[in-house]
Amino acid sequence: MSSPRVTVLAGGVGGARLAHGFALALPRPSDLDVVVNVGDDTELHGLWISPDLDTVLYTLAGLNDEERGWGLRGETYATLEQMARLGEDTWFTLGDKDLATHVVRTAALRSGQPLSTVTARLAASLGVAPRLLPVTDDRVATVLTTPSGRLAFQEYFVRRQHADAVLDVAYEGLADARPAPGVLDAVTGADLLVVAPSNPFLSVEPVLGVPGVRDAVRARGEAGAGRRVAVSPIVGGQAVKGPAAQILETLGHEVSALGVARLYAGLVDVMVIDSADAHLETAIGDLGLDVLATDTIMGGPAGRERLARELLSAVGHALP
Amino acid sequence: MSSPRVTVLAGGVGGARLAHGFALALPRPSDLDVVVNVGDDTELHGLWISPDLDTVLYTLAGLNDEERGWGLRGETYATLEQMARLGEDTWFTLGDKDLATHVVRTAALRSGQPLSTVTARLAASLGVAPRLLPVTDDRVATVLTTPSGRLAFQEYFVRRQHADAVLDVAYEGLADARPAPGVLDAVTGADLLVVAPSNPFLSVEPVLGVPGVRDAVRARGEAGAGRRVAVSPIVGGQAVKGPAAQILETLGHEVSALGVARLYAGLVDVMVIDSADAHLETAIGDLGLDVLATDTIMGGPAGRERLARELLSAVGHALP
Repeated sequence: MSSPRVTVLAGGVGGARLAHGFALALPRPSDLDVVVNVGDDTELHGLWISPDLDTVLYTLAGLNDEERGWGLRGETYATLEQMARLGEDTWFTLGDKDLATHVVRTAALRSGQPLSTVTARLAASLGVAPRLLPVTDDRVATVLTTPSGRLAFQEYFVRRQHADAVLDVAYEGLADARPAPGVLDAVTGADLLVVAPSNPFLSVEPVLGVPGVRDAVRARGEAGAGRRVAVSPIVGGQAVKGPAAQILETLGHEVSALGVARLYAGLVDVMVIDSADAHLETAIGDLGLDVLATDTIMGGPAGRERLARELLSAVGHALP
Repeated sequence: MSSPRVTVLAGGVGGARLAHGFALALPRPSDLDVVVNVGDDTELHGLWISPDLDTVLYTLAGLNDEERGWGLRGETYATLEQMARLGEDTWFTLGDKDLATHVVRTAALRSGQPLSTVTARLAASLGVAPRLLPVTDDRVATVLTTPSGRLAFQEYFVRRQHADAVLDVAYEGLADARPAPGVLDAVTGADLLVVAPSNPFLSVEPVLGVPGVRDAVRARGEAGAGRRVAVSPIVGGQAVKGPAAQILETLGHEVSALGVARLYAGLVDVMVIDSADAHLETAIGDLGLDVLATDTIMGGPAGRERLARELLSAVGHALP
């Protein structure tokens, strides 16, 4: 049997971990495409920062800080400390090694290179074989409406530590964004398309919402192409990481794997839920979705690879 | 007697050290203005780097690496090492702390702030009381003609370690540059104007050559304003630091304090030479210059302060 091609639609940590699992599981890691959210991207200190791309990049390169979930292992903060001394507002933590990525990316973007091109170059430099694709080379900015007003993503997420209730999520630029080169092919051509256990509103929607992407996912179903799988980021009614639970709640959705399944019904074929949520299997099945209940909590690389193998196996691509 | 105001026209290390001497010697360090060359400035990795301004800034802040002469003490290089890993050409050494300066400056410049404004802010952040003035907010680029062709300044100076013979020096943008706010007042209003022991062609000429600056220095003489003093960067026929000796030679000048004095004759009143060159006193005097022969080799802060006090004393501003 030929090695299956997999495409993961990813946000930050959850997407990075599952993508890493596929990179480890697939006979050829280059058969993995990861389409990554850029709605969290921001400019700070004149540097262009793409947090989700970086989390996926560092994780696939094996350089990420596993304990913290983001950033690089063994970081130092000499530049940031000096920037504070120079009067800069340093609420967004930037490590010295991490800064190298931002400096290189910013210089490339300013010279007119698209984000997808510099991303590919960064990945190649770090020996990352899977293809990292920003979902778009255009600017998309996720903006949160909260009781304290509208907040830019990193303002909400990092500076205020996602403590504000989210009343609405908007995506500036999304309606006019064009899929980056390779994105639609990756969505269409994969044997397995996976919506990672990322935040449905903060990570997945700004990927699916790029004009053409959701339609391409839908078209796979009609064409009887390979299976489409979504992994719930909600386990036992709680988010594995981040504010997904609170946001589901304030936006009026059930805070459970069933609530997540309702968001993805009609778009994917299989909903992957945690064994702890096995009691939701029938209700999710009633939405017309196949259900795979398994251990979805990915710890280290072994747990990620196991989950990736289970997903492949569940859709008929059991690997040796 | 009121405290004298001093203005130093400076390049990098020599200018920084003498300026530091005045900052230590003057009762009020804020009575010191330092007008700094920007012909060495360059953009690398998308960051705007002003090496001479930084050397003066770090030296006046007491943060400079004394041993090396440039950069910050206790530097680390985590970002640069990671940039190399990302495929960047890292021949220009950038420390982690130093990068903070470049990041902050670049962001300010890109937001439309003039170099003089961000320079003042950086100086204030580091507690530097003297006024640091880039000679111009406009772009000036010193370019060297060598047997290997035309070389940008840092290409010549850092990358090729000033090993090429300099056949000609050009200053792109100089003829159209405007003095930064405060520069002409600093040149005109000081009780003592000092041309630092910096490279006459690489550091001093791109300062004097900004339209209006040389005229302002000349006008001081006509107006009978305070004295104008130049300190020779050549001692015993050799440059204290850098390629000044080779450049004097290849451009057809005598490689001696006398050769330097000929460059500044008509522009300054007093030539300060090292005691080792006392035998040149008569010849320099014949150029119409007063001569002060003293120990011009500034080691640490004490030596710098001593030289500054001697210069002040020589022009009638003996300090208690």
